[in-house]
Amino acid sequence: MSTAAVTDHPAVDTALGSALLAALDGPHHERRAAGRAALPAEGMLRDPSLGLAEARAWTLRRLEELVAAGLGKSIVGIEAATVDTQLQSLIDFETISYGDLSVAIKSGVQHGLFGGAIAGLGSPAQQERFLDDAIHLRLLGCFAMTERGHGSDVASLETTIGYDPDAGEFVVHSPRETSAKTYIGNAAQHGRMAAVFGQLVVDGVGRGVHCILVPIRDAEGNPLPGVTIGDNGYKGGLLGVDNGWLSFDQVRVPRDMLLDRFGSVDAEGHYVSSIENPNRRFFTMLGALVRGRICIGGGAAIAARRALSIATRYATRRSQFRHSRSEDESPLLDYLAHQRKLLPAIARAYALGFAQNDLIAGYGKLSSDPGHDPREQRALETLAAGLKALNTEFANSTIQTCREACGGAGYMAANGLTQLRADTDVFATFEGDNTVLLQLVTKGVLTDYREVWGGLDRVGLVQASARMVGSAVIERTGAGLLAERLVAAARRKGDSAAFYDRGWQAWMFEERERHSVDSLARRMRAADRDSFDQVNAMQDHVLFVARAHMERVVLDSFIAGIEACRDRVAQQTLEELCTLFALTSLEADTGWFLSHHRMSDARAKALRKQINQLCHDLRPRATALVEGFGIPEHWLGSEMLEA
Amino acid sequence: MSTAAVTDHPAVDTALGSALLAALDGPHHERRAAGRAALPAEGMLRDPSLGLAEARAWTLRRLEELVAAGLGKSIVGIEAATVDTQLQSLIDFETISYGDLSVAIKSGVQHGLFGGAIAGLGSPAQQERFLDDAIHLRLLGCFAMTERGHGSDVASLETTIGYDPDAGEFVVHSPRETSAKTYIGNAAQHGRMAAVFGQLVVDGVGRGVHCILVPIRDAEGNPLPGVTIGDNGYKGGLLGVDNGWLSFDQVRVPRDMLLDRFGSVDAEGHYVSSIENPNRRFFTMLGALVRGRICIGGGAAIAARRALSIATRYATRRSQFRHSRSEDESPLLDYLAHQRKLLPAIARAYALGFAQNDLIAGYGKLSSDPGHDPREQRALETLAAGLKALNTEFANSTIQTCREACGGAGYMAANGLTQLRADTDVFATFEGDNTVLLQLVTKGVLTDYREVWGGLDRVGLVQASARMVGSAVIERTGAGLLAERLVAAARRKGDSAAFYDRGWQAWMFEERERHSVDSLARRMRAADRDSFDQVNAMQDHVLFVARAHMERVVLDSFIAGIEACRDRVAQQTLEELCTLFALTSLEADTGWFLSHHRMSDARAKALRKQINQLCHDLRPRATALVEGFGIPEHWLGSEMLEA
Repeated sequence: MSTAAVTDHPAVDTALGSALLAALDGPHHERRAAGRAALPAEGMLRDPSLGLAEARAWTLRRLEELVAAGLGKSIVGIEAATVDTQLQSLIDFETISYGDLSVAIKSGVQHGLFGGAIAGLGSPAQQERFLDDAIHLRLLGCFAMTERGHGSDVASLETTIGYDPDAGEFVVHSPRETSAKTYIGNAAQHGRMAAVFGQLVVDGVGRGVHCILVPIRDAEGNPLPGVTIGDNGYKGGLLGVDNGWLSFDQVRVPRDMLLDRFGSVDAEGHYVSSIENPNRRFFTMLGALVRGRICIGGGAAIAARRALSIATRYATRRSQFRHSRSEDESPLLDYLAHQRKLLPAIARAYALGFAQNDLIAGYGKLSSDPGHDPREQRALETLAAGLKALNTEFANSTIQTCREACGGAGYMAANGLTQLRADTDVFATFEGDNTVLLQLVTKGVLTDYREVWGGLDRVGLVQASARMVGSAVIERTGAGLLAERLVAAARRKGDSAAFYDRGWQAWMFEERERHSVDSLARRMRAADRDSFDQVNAMQDHVLFVARAHMERVVLDSFIAGIEACRDRVAQQTLEELCTLFALTSLEADTGWFLSHHRMSDARAKALRKQINQLCHDLRPRATALVEGFGIPEHWLGSEMLEA
Repeated sequence: MSTAAVTDHPAVDTALGSALLAALDGPHHERRAAGRAALPAEGMLRDPSLGLAEARAWTLRRLEELVAAGLGKSIVGIEAATVDTQLQSLIDFETISYGDLSVAIKSGVQHGLFGGAIAGLGSPAQQERFLDDAIHLRLLGCFAMTERGHGSDVASLETTIGYDPDAGEFVVHSPRETSAKTYIGNAAQHGRMAAVFGQLVVDGVGRGVHCILVPIRDAEGNPLPGVTIGDNGYKGGLLGVDNGWLSFDQVRVPRDMLLDRFGSVDAEGHYVSSIENPNRRFFTMLGALVRGRICIGGGAAIAARRALSIATRYATRRSQFRHSRSEDESPLLDYLAHQRKLLPAIARAYALGFAQNDLIAGYGKLSSDPGHDPREQRALETLAAGLKALNTEFANSTIQTCREACGGAGYMAANGLTQLRADTDVFATFEGDNTVLLQLVTKGVLTDYREVWGGLDRVGLVQASARMVGSAVIERTGAGLLAERLVAAARRKGDSAAFYDRGWQAWMFEERERHSVDSLARRMRAADRDSFDQVNAMQDHVLFVARAHMERVVLDSFIAGIEACRDRVAQQTLEELCTLFALTSLEADTGWFLSHHRMSDARAKALRKQINQLCHDLRPRATALVEGFGIPEHWLGSEMLEA
């Protein structure tokens, strides 16, 4: 880790800022620093006065510039994939996200989803044929999964991909109005081809959801015969992404257009697949979504950091109200209410950043190891789903808080917050609706739970679950073993441990998870799984488990990130941030901890005071804390900071 | 209350919906129904494709249409004011808020603020001279209070209004760059005159903040000499309002342009005021802000109801995921997680609506009674500040929730949610920043507290505060006495009372308020009021008190609203909504209730289950619940509901 290079980073004026940046960048510090250095800073942000057509044109031009600068090109076919190229594609998306988010999402659509479908689901021949054009924007494409009738429920897609053995062609068809693909990026204007997901039917037998490449426009940009294209028009944000809808009326495509790595139709018209189990095949087909979720979570994190950088810098400069004994006005950030808005959010931004680093590391490891354990794959998907949900809801609420913390100035487009807010909004529901993703997290947690505890009878289960902390479930579902060691220490100390005791914090996080998983598993066991009402009645419990699990995973990552930090001073600041993150997370659930006797009344009352104290302690370092996000002030596009 | 007329309302298909609408409209049902009937439905919403200049032109044209239809004209001078005209001006703003919010805010700027300043601070002669032109948009004006350097801290405004006795003129001046007025509606383009707030200096003596009318543009729209005008350009929303900035370089205006109802300079150059106390004079000058806050709270409430109408109707029609034992998919609103997003928000919308009705009634009463007790005035200002904060933060979070609850469709401008979200965003910080307003609420509560308890010593205070529930503080600061009666009943029953017992709910709300006020008062007494650190350390406590107080006030209003409802069936539904509101409010603070021994563990755990049960019970009536908001489906501008 070279801090010398970082000190030159224009975002960072303080040694503490540099060291925090190195720590938060983590194992990818050099790679991320190189990305930031390669990003053409000129023209990062779109002029808010551009209308729909101009915004789309600007976005495509900007993406071309970035590709020319070497960004977004790291999507390669699986055969050529190395840990390095896989990681680079994730870091590229983060780097692009420092600028206008329409550009990032357009890159996500083009490189991550369209390119990713070809790379992930296509054969080497298909990759050879299409991938280079996709990467270099000579072939702009769509990822046509969502339909009007079905978004989250991909298994119920209505689009059909029939096979005509006589012609040796596939027939792609939208049987009903609800079957039209919609909200599809690149569809309204720029796309020439679409990776279309639909139900493959061969010889009268449904083979489940598959993906096929369908040309949608000719070289002049006119829709091809049988393809109807619509425009979704204005949206809440991301004006530069040309979302639209696609409907297919018996559109014929050659046999070699079915992305056939995991399922194909041979020359004799027989369906062939390397994956026997249709359910497993389905989830393999959706595997491309994992990278998308990692990217969206990462992009949301960058957006939140941008907003926090703006609002925190503003709050150290903007003063308001005089003290009673002086003529001076206080900077906004001296007020406790203002500290409470920004500093816990900064702490959480660090926490989520460390967790994202672990997610990226896991993705790199798995995608370079074709022989990996399917359980590792499931753990990665669970983590990607959960962190996507946490990062995007955090970005939305934090950017809103930052907007409000800047008062009227925050509402002016020229100060850089409103566009961020509008653009990240949809992150909460695309690439997986957050509420659905959190349910996936719990599903993953329960599957692990059953694997560990499934063989036990009821008595054994209760006995075992009492020993569960620090045991297999934690190891299986989490990021590391560090928390476990701390737990052991904390348990010896008991409830008298101070708020700053990491062991106590970890223990509380794990108790929240362990108990809620335990009780959910019991309820599930007692319920009639086929009863909608009974399963539905647990939905809030399911969401609680997902959050409890994810919070614990994030704390694990934060602890590991602190251990990895080589700078003593930064390490101390990270310890305080980690405590602020942990106590804020506990504070949000004090009702749970008290009613489940995990926290004493006195401690619950003291929690708020401790958080206030931490805010007070960190306040003088506020500028360094946001310097650690690595965003130079002139990247923020915020006029009020220039005044 | 004529329900017959309401049944004809195109928003309402069910008897329950009609009756709920009548109840929620409350004492102003006829007036509100007449407003809705008078609103030209054609062209209610702005085409999202309009750019800045077009949006501004459209907004002015639309406002002209509404004025022609008789809306927004009810601002009259104080002398001519009746309860009727005062109420009508508030209802007019609500009515306009059913449509595009730029139009509502432009009306608010023109009629409420600019017109309101003339009506509230001007002499009869000044009202005679300017008011009719202002109302009929022949004289478009600005309300120039906020400066670059000072928004919330109005007492520290830098703009000076000097008096030149030789010329008999005032000299309006912006001494520094930070003195420029900014974010001023009507400034960037349409305004011809501004009501400018600044420090009046007469004969070398500062007389505090006063308001003066300053012509800013000539008939051709060019800035007048000495006036510099800038454009705030694009914002997070409200594109149709031409916000801009104004700077004055020794601009001279005649003596009779100072709005001189409460302070003037006579022909001999002497300052004259009917209000001796400069502090009281200052707050009188700010009195115009009260109506603005009532309007903004009311407009936010309408926006939230629009969003809930859209999302709830969508959630009853949109289905997703199949049950295990059937081929049917469930409507989104059958899922507990979805119910949890929308139904407690609907309950809170009703709660805030009843409280707003009481606020409006209080405003009508006071503004028609010039001899009212200053304490009543303070109580009204406290209530207006608190409800503005609660309504606007509710609108922002609820509209966001609704957007997400509609998935990708919610992000499409054509479905009516994104514009609402963008437009209401700034409501959280204009007309008083919510964080500052909540502090004002607590200030009001503590002032009442001191008046009641100020004479007691410490022992007496503790004894007295133990008796405080249902006593003078509650009476003074709240809306009614109903809760008091219920409390008496609940206390007899003790903790065994059921969740549905209104007495128990009211008792909990009052305990939260009483204890937090009590303990804050004690801390304040012990603190050095001149120590920034000591006062600042209580800021989160101050905000907690404000919320505890406001929640209790809102519950009081809800209870009174149920009592006033004449329809038995609707009354029953309102009882359930009130319980849902109350339990959700308690759930958010379970940590507090548990650690302060106001709630047992068992009850805290059961709370969540009860809320789920209420959601389940109310779900079949969801459509009627939103029909009670009185918004016809074709007003919602939501394509997805037409499908």
